[in-house]
Amino acid sequence: MARPDDRAPDQLRPVRIQRGWLDHAEGSVLVEFGRTRVLCAASVQDSVPRWRRDSGLGWVTAEYAMLPRATNTRNDRESIKGRVGGRTHEISRLIGRSVRACLDFKALGENTVQLDCDVLQADGGTRTAAITGAYVALADAVSWMRERKMLRGNPLVTSVSAVSVGVVAGEARLDLCYEEDSAAGTDMNVVCTGDGRFVEVQGTAEGAPFDRAELDALLDLAAGGCAELTRLQDAALGKEKQAP
Amino acid sequence: MARPDDRAPDQLRPVRIQRGWLDHAEGSVLVEFGRTRVLCAASVQDSVPRWRRDSGLGWVTAEYAMLPRATNTRNDRESIKGRVGGRTHEISRLIGRSVRACLDFKALGENTVQLDCDVLQADGGTRTAAITGAYVALADAVSWMRERKMLRGNPLVTSVSAVSVGVVAGEARLDLCYEEDSAAGTDMNVVCTGDGRFVEVQGTAEGAPFDRAELDALLDLAAGGCAELTRLQDAALGKEKQAP
Amino acid sequence: MARPDDRAPDQLRPVRIQRGWLDHAEGSVLVEFGRTRVLCAASVQDSVPRWRRDSGLGWVTAEYAMLPRATNTRNDRESIKGRVGGRTHEISRLIGRSVRACLDFKALGENTVQLDCDVLQADGGTRTAAITGAYVALADAVSWMRERKMLRGNPLVTSVSAVSVGVVAGEARLDLCYEEDSAAGTDMNVVCTGDGRFVEVQGTAEGAPFDRAELDALLDLAAGGCAELTRLQDAALGKEKQAP
Amino acid sequence: MARPDDRAPDQLRPVRIQRGWLDHAEGSVLVEFGRTRVLCAASVQDSVPRWRRDSGLGWVTAEYAMLPRATNTRNDRESIKGRVGGRTHEISRLIGRSVRACLDFKALGENTVQLDCDVLQADGGTRTAAITGAYVALADAVSWMRERKMLRGNPLVTSVSAVSVGVVAGEARLDLCYEEDSAAGTDMNVVCTGDGRFVEVQGTAEGAPFDRAELDALLDLAAGGCAELTRLQDAALGKEKQAP
Amino acid sequence: MARPDDRAPDQLRPVRIQRGWLDHAEGSVLVEFGRTRVLCAASVQDSVPRWRRDSGLGWVTAEYAMLPRATNTRNDRESIKGRVGGRTHEISRLIGRSVRACLDFKALGENTVQLDCDVLQADGGTRTAAITGAYVALADAVSWMRERKMLRGNPLVTSVSAVSVGVVAGEARLDLCYEEDSAAGTDMNVVCTGDGRFVEVQGTAEGAPFDRAELDALLDLAAGGCAELTRLQDAALGKEKQAP
Amino acid sequence: MARPDDRAPDQLRPVRIQRGWLDHAEGSVLVEFGRTRVLCAASVQDSVPRWRRDSGLGWVTAEYAMLPRATNTRNDRESIKGRVGGRTHEISRLIGRSVRACLDFKALGENTVQLDCDVLQADGGTRTAAITGAYVALADAVSWMRERKMLRGNPLVTSVSAVSVGVVAGEARLDLCYEEDSAAGTDMNVVCTGDGRFVEVQGTAEGAPFDRAELDALLDLAAGGCAELTRLQDAALGKEKQAP
Repeated sequence: MARPDDRAPDQLRPVRIQRGWLDHAEGSVLVEFGRTRVLCAASVQDSVPRWRRDSGLGWVTAEYAMLPRATNTRNDRESIKGRVGGRTHEISRLIGRSVRACLDFKALGENTVQLDCDVLQADGGTRTAAITGAYVALADAVSWMRERKMLRGNPLVTSVSAVSVGVVAGEARLDLCYEEDSAAGTDMNVVCTGDGRFVEVQGTAEGAPFDRAELDALLDLAAGGCAELTRLQDAALGKEKQAP
Repeated sequence: MARPDDRAPDQLRPVRIQRGWLDHAEGSVLVEFGRTRVLCAASVQDSVPRWRRDSGLGWVTAEYAMLPRATNTRNDRESIKGRVGGRTHEISRLIGRSVRACLDFKALGENTVQLDCDVLQADGGTRTAAITGAYVALADAVSWMRERKMLRGNPLVTSVSAVSVGVVAGEARLDLCYEEDSAAGTDMNVVCTGDGRFVEVQGTAEGAPFDRAELDALLDLAAGGCAELTRLQDAALGKEKQAP
Repeated sequence: MARPDDRAPDQLRPVRIQRGWLDHAEGSVLVEFGRTRVLCAASVQDSVPRWRRDSGLGWVTAEYAMLPRATNTRNDRESIKGRVGGRTHEISRLIGRSVRACLDFKALGENTVQLDCDVLQADGGTRTAAITGAYVALADAVSWMRERKMLRGNPLVTSVSAVSVGVVAGEARLDLCYEEDSAAGTDMNVVCTGDGRFVEVQGTAEGAPFDRAELDALLDLAAGGCAELTRLQDAALGKEKQAP
Repeated sequence: MARPDDRAPDQLRPVRIQRGWLDHAEGSVLVEFGRTRVLCAASVQDSVPRWRRDSGLGWVTAEYAMLPRATNTRNDRESIKGRVGGRTHEISRLIGRSVRACLDFKALGENTVQLDCDVLQADGGTRTAAITGAYVALADAVSWMRERKMLRGNPLVTSVSAVSVGVVAGEARLDLCYEEDSAAGTDMNVVCTGDGRFVEVQGTAEGAPFDRAELDALLDLAAGGCAELTRLQDAALGKEKQAP
Repeated sequence: MARPDDRAPDQLRPVRIQRGWLDHAEGSVLVEFGRTRVLCAASVQDSVPRWRRDSGLGWVTAEYAMLPRATNTRNDRESIKGRVGGRTHEISRLIGRSVRACLDFKALGENTVQLDCDVLQADGGTRTAAITGAYVALADAVSWMRERKMLRGNPLVTSVSAVSVGVVAGEARLDLCYEEDSAAGTDMNVVCTGDGRFVEVQGTAEGAPFDRAELDALLDLAAGGCAELTRLQDAALGKEKQAP
Repeated sequence: MARPDDRAPDQLRPVRIQRGWLDHAEGSVLVEFGRTRVLCAASVQDSVPRWRRDSGLGWVTAEYAMLPRATNTRNDRESIKGRVGGRTHEISRLIGRSVRACLDFKALGENTVQLDCDVLQADGGTRTAAITGAYVALADAVSWMRERKMLRGNPLVTSVSAVSVGVVAGEARLDLCYEEDSAAGTDMNVVCTGDGRFVEVQGTAEGAPFDRAELDALLDLAAGGCAELTRLQDAALGKEKQAP
């Protein structure tokens, strides 16, 4: 079984990172991994949650959601259902943890950045696209804060990016689209820092359990994918740096 | 006080209607009224709600929502709060009533079209942009159904569009942006059919009550604005008709 | 088709305004428009919501609800369902906006009046009866506050009343009962001040869209109805003034 | 400490039972115990809940609620809070159990009567007034069903009424008003059938625990009060019986 | 019909009170009435709810809940349903009132004890077991506070215990198991202090109403049962006192 | 920094698996990992959820929850808060996925097993203890079904167990207690089948990101821990097998 878009097993889908997609947000990115399209907005607040006050430390938090018709079949809105589902909770927490891994909260000062990752269209890999885009939106929000002298140093210790990997038709593949994700025996999401270390490794046997050799192959593939995404993030952020 | 973007009092903001913005939805439109940007998705279902079954009639319903950072200051998500606010409810109901006014439910057959209007960015007039865009998304969904022979005739009796008008600094103005909306003494939303009749007229005195002369002036302005929007809807829909 | 109770097209139903129906509330009115019966209670608090503090300004807010068996067929309680419906939200907001239009918040001082409008029996026009009654309950609460020297002037700049109008069987009619409301092609709720200006105009095409001539006829009818309701409010409030 | 309204310790407050207070409900009563005023509506449905189907048996259920300004100080609405409080739940369940005690469900057939008891004004004893009024509304709903030949016999085996008793200032007193209820050391609600047997006995030591002698005195007092309420219910129902 | 476990009508089931079942809680008890098994945890907080502040008085509150498979057939979790049911509310309030009856809040000082009673297995009498166990957990929490010098005296004026009684097959019986409870015509829960006075008496006619003679017989039985439970509580608390 | 209980880095805490702890459930286990104590109940239903009907396949689902005083400081109940938190959702989903990995749903037939894992006391590793115990409860429920001839074969293809590993004070350690978990730089939960393959690998950098060498060391440690837990599960289940 070839990949639906004829990619090599270790090839990412076309990735597009549009900065400044929103006029109001302090940082915003429309990130695309193939047909997956996530709008990431970073909102800055010059205060921290109650439990963090007078600590001298900042905070970053994230919320993930999907528009009802992001998917092939329409899903009911969680606002109408009156409760946030387990999957939404889980991914929001993952994004928050991942992005916090690249931060020096002391340098951030007592400020909060709220990251909103809204999936406008879903075709697999929405959480990894969200993390990858959220980092860029965060970087822009940090620049915005720097210009307003809200920081005590550089809070961005490193960058983070994320990618999915999986075993489909017996082959380890990078950056699964929805069709591949549904057929995958093992499915793994990996979050790496810009210097190639791991922040999160979440592997799940959807069908048969996997052995150590498969796990090792998937980790190799993911590390390569994250390294490529790091280059794309740098390029997206670099363009503007050169502009002024 | 001049208009923030130097428009004439009876001039719309630049309107942009992009069809087919989503790959999965049966109809979808990204509609922009200046900086206001609303994603309208139409989802087709070949059944009707329980209370409508075996009536031979179709149904159309709508939901409106705003992304948390659509606005200048971030708003908490209604899914997290666990309840849909009064304003959201009110606008969802308005969109639904407005779009239903242009439909022949017998011709639609026992099918449902669900319209989702999600505000990606807000700068005044989100509900009127939503109605104007939702009609175009609905028209595309109807074409999709026609190709699949799901219809019993032409369900689109007419089109609908909507615009806001208001009295700002003593002057009746068309299509208020957020800054003007906040300063308006009287604020009115008007929904018209393509042949110039009224579907909804909702006028509110934000400051001083208004008299009949002001009301008449606003209605004239709105009727003109809706006629122009009808032309833009037709143009947007016409382009593709010529394509194949 | 004659009116169910043989009224002239421009005739109100019998209106009854009983003040002081409750012993605890600072102002209370049982208002009846024919068989529609709404209990309006005004509760005074010597503080304002957090966002209004230290502004020197007061606040008035309103909540509307229906008892489960106010209607022909029983409706489930919103408390049991755990959420307030869109219609309830919409009408609560309308009442609040309408009553606030007659107020000078500076004269009210940093006090809040909460208006509760509970429909004990419904036969069409519950929101217009609620607004009409709520004004009288508010006036009594203002008198109560005046006696306790809580005010900085006269907060009641004008009065407000409200009435429904609609086109039934091709005829423009005033103050529709439920049977007429269900049959109406166009349905409009109009809120006026005591001096005949408009506070809210909400017209909806239930069936066919309406043209400007119909709209004008309905507005004329509504203005006349509100003027009559203003006289009835004055009479209700006047009676007691003469008593002592 | 004398009673606030100079009643004898074993004397009820003035009780008023107005039947047919609502036009739509199959049975309705406005019941007053002094200043306590409860609107009881009985709604008939010709079906039973799912768990009761095909049993040949009917069902009766009850819901209790208070309007926000029934009390001296305004209470927030449970619909707005999004949850029904413990006290409301508890009293709804008590009313349901009490009224079901006087019924032969086989004679009722597979019909449901829903009793809504809404407290319009509260001055102590709202749950006992609600039970006493609900029985009368139920009796009227049963007559309504009898006329429509929906019954298989007489479902009303007996009647029920309820009253509160308590020890105030060392004295056992009947039918406490709010002021007395707040001061009571022991507080008991008793529900009796028309033939003087007990359906519910709920005694609570608000202050010091009570001994058997006190308990016995309170039970005697309550039995007498319920007997008087039974006479008042009969009188209220009797009036109409003679009419036709 | 003999009792399912061949007990005498006035005999308790085997009662077991294990103190210190939890390592973290300031007081904890696993209490068993036959197969009914309730885990009672007492949590101490050195503050009081807002409405109680600066009163010099402490507070005790309780929450009751059941694990989903405590019962014969699994019940859905109230957390998943998103609302606490009426029965749970009612029993939580009963436990709180009962335990507060044995307290001197002045001696407790401005501290709060939260009692959590979680039913691990249910076989009738869960609320009475909960009250009986909660008292012992509270006593241990009080000892814990005494050692830390948080008290202003002895807050435990007396003890409380509770038992159910009912009429089954025409016979008054003590401490009903689930099978008997389901078959009981009259069902009563009685809470007594250690010196034999009543704190709560809640009797309900499940089938036929009961007369005064039955009520008296049940009260006698309950008083005896509570006296026995008081002895068992004392023994449980005494053992450890002697140990060190 | 030595381990709080002087264990070797690759040593489990004392593990205790008590089967049949509940009388009603078809399978039940009280599992202890040191002071962590989780009650696992398996409930059998002879039907499947709607979306699974007529597939010939069974289903297994899980819910995780914590008693309020399982932890050092009391947590509010999720039932009272009215919503299930993200952590609870996440762990419930993890348990469900893990246990489903050992099942042949065809052999299970159209039956559902609901697993309830309630944490009675928490000292780190509650989710891994829950998975380990849930498997044993499931195995007992499967035996129960086998005796009743509800199965079409052996649904238990393998067993599952789970353990946490982490880097504390620079040392890779197995089965962290709460004190170690709080201090861990990297924290990983690993679920293995009885034959040593992986079902879930969830690693999170709590502090600094981790490199591949650390990841490898943790995976080795976890694999060894799961193998030991598999032996303990077998022993617990084996005892009874020999009995009859």
